[in-house]
Amino acid sequence: MKAILFDVFGTIVDWRSSLIAQFRALSAELGRELPGEALADAWRAHYAPSMDRVRTGAQAWTVLDDLHRAGLDVLLAQYGIVLDAAQAARVNRFWHRLDPWPDTVAGLHALKQHVPIGTLTNGNIALMVDVARHGGLPWDVLFCADLFQHYKPDPQVYLGACRLLGLPPGEVMLCAAHNDDLHAARALGLKTAFIARPTEYGPGQRKDLAAESDWDVVADDLVDLSRKLFA
Amino acid sequence: MKAILFDVFGTIVDWRSSLIAQFRALSAELGRELPGEALADAWRAHYAPSMDRVRTGAQAWTVLDDLHRAGLDVLLAQYGIVLDAAQAARVNRFWHRLDPWPDTVAGLHALKQHVPIGTLTNGNIALMVDVARHGGLPWDVLFCADLFQHYKPDPQVYLGACRLLGLPPGEVMLCAAHNDDLHAARALGLKTAFIARPTEYGPGQRKDLAAESDWDVVADDLVDLSRKLFA
Repeated sequence: MKAILFDVFGTIVDWRSSLIAQFRALSAELGRELPGEALADAWRAHYAPSMDRVRTGAQAWTVLDDLHRAGLDVLLAQYGIVLDAAQAARVNRFWHRLDPWPDTVAGLHALKQHVPIGTLTNGNIALMVDVARHGGLPWDVLFCADLFQHYKPDPQVYLGACRLLGLPPGEVMLCAAHNDDLHAARALGLKTAFIARPTEYGPGQRKDLAAESDWDVVADDLVDLSRKLFA
Repeated sequence: MKAILFDVFGTIVDWRSSLIAQFRALSAELGRELPGEALADAWRAHYAPSMDRVRTGAQAWTVLDDLHRAGLDVLLAQYGIVLDAAQAARVNRFWHRLDPWPDTVAGLHALKQHVPIGTLTNGNIALMVDVARHGGLPWDVLFCADLFQHYKPDPQVYLGACRLLGLPPGEVMLCAAHNDDLHAARALGLKTAFIARPTEYGPGQRKDLAAESDWDVVADDLVDLSRKLFA
């Protein structure tokens, strides 16, 4: 195994708590109590369907920043929240300021001592640069959907990253908190590592609470992953 | 100016001294004195013509690692150096272990405090990941020729990086030790910064000893660039 790639939303960063905290700050600024949890969940609910429209060809290639923006506009209308253009652009960039999970930074630094580490994410490059800088994520390389103009689980994303690394899929590991991402990776020959993020979707999460297959590694978090791979 | 991209070979790393040092180590290993300086210069002499063959369409897209390897095979034949397959592969990876100039790491860290920093290089991703890890280069993002399947000075490389950053060219600066790279960047609307690397090609260098146009910034080195941009 010569490189480890990581899913980002949920695996590396706690997008839900980060959005909620930013909606709370926005509430104070607007002088109006916004339902941060509901907004975060509703916004994220646009995620898979919006990418599926692109994946199926119903919509031309569109980067995640722009899919987020379309979802936000629906959301603002639904909740009757009026923002000017600059405010809406700023709210859309809430996704650029997502906090890492507590183990993320230490775990990535430990893993990076042994092999190159990179993203394998449906986020776009501009978004991932900001997320990495915000969280101090020491990536060696960013593989993002807009490099391939495909969204996971399209094979082009997984195989495109392996090709750019100059490695056969069997020498690349994907680490994710989502069993379906790992299923797609394994089907293409990549190695797989699962870590549970049981509060990614909040206290009521019912999916991806545990490994659902015999992934190559199952670890508690990224620090534990480094221990299990390299200790 | 919202991001700074950097040419790598010559601007960030001292490829010539690094190759010479590695040929010296190889000499000791083979028990045969190799002409390290001549080999380094002759190898690099393949660089522009080999990329031009790809740029003009005479050769299908080929990553720099493979262009280097073709040049190496010519070189070994010319000098009557016999290497087995594993040795030749290892020598080709001399380009993966290029040392930064003395100011590079400190300069990049200083610049990174203010704006995202990335490569804009004819090297391929796999090569740049290794160069960055070898030298401790704190890139936020790698833009490499294989993302675009074009070599500089093709516009696709400069404009492709701006597009992926989500920035208009006028908000992106290219820093390079080569006037022709900056001419290409400026023609496309990018900002430009020149730093001289007067020994890149050894003691007899006669090109790019000084800025040849009114670039937006002319600095002594990367630490000076950070001072001039952000002090």
